[in-house]
Amino acid sequence: MTDIRNLDEALAGIAQPWQPHRLASINDYDLKVVKLEGEFVWHSHPETDELFLVLSGELTIQLRDRDVVLGPNDVFVVPRGVEHCPRADGEVRALLIEPQGTVNTGDAGGERTSPLRELP
Amino acid sequence: MTDIRNLDEALAGIAQPWQPHRLASINDYDLKVVKLEGEFVWHSHPETDELFLVLSGELTIQLRDRDVVLGPNDVFVVPRGVEHCPRADGEVRALLIEPQGTVNTGDAGGERTSPLRELP
Repeated sequence: MTDIRNLDEALAGIAQPWQPHRLASINDYDLKVVKLEGEFVWHSHPETDELFLVLSGELTIQLRDRDVVLGPNDVFVVPRGVEHCPRADGEVRALLIEPQGTVNTGDAGGERTSPLRELP
Repeated sequence: MTDIRNLDEALAGIAQPWQPHRLASINDYDLKVVKLEGEFVWHSHPETDELFLVLSGELTIQLRDRDVVLGPNDVFVVPRGVEHCPRADGEVRALLIEPQGTVNTGDAGGERTSPLRELP
């Protein structure tokens, strides 16, 4: 049986941006908490949609044809295969929902690739 | 391309408890918003885990061997096949994550069964 996890406690334990941590699993999907700050890298996930739920702060998801600006409690799904580059001008706290094994940098790879971390 | 959905606006448009509404889809999973008030029915989902994220209020998920009490920003996953009965003594606003096609009353059926609704 799983335990209760609290979003705020989980996020308080995360020091660095761009490091997704697993909060819970539902079958073969993960609910992840992450802090975002600054600009990420352009990438796409050819195999899966990616859901962003902003908890605090303002997150801009740059798409090739427009910017999607998300505030607290806004939800947006980047469809599979769509190039995007998240940018947070201040600190953003967010939830992600993705299939297990989804890599944060998608098809781009590189030094910003972060393994999925477990919460302490 | 999908649009931005806001949790608070979505929940403000829901009048009745125990009626899940689709907020977004990620591949073949749904993120649903729901209001809960009063006691539901005992049921299980033999094919899938079910994730609850409480946004406001206090939700008790009764299990056969214990009660799990969730406050704001608490997350709990009911594993597949585990009997549970949610109870909200006041109004609770919550998110659910489940595979598409998951029925709210699971294997119990009956009059509390609600079709998944689309937001206005």
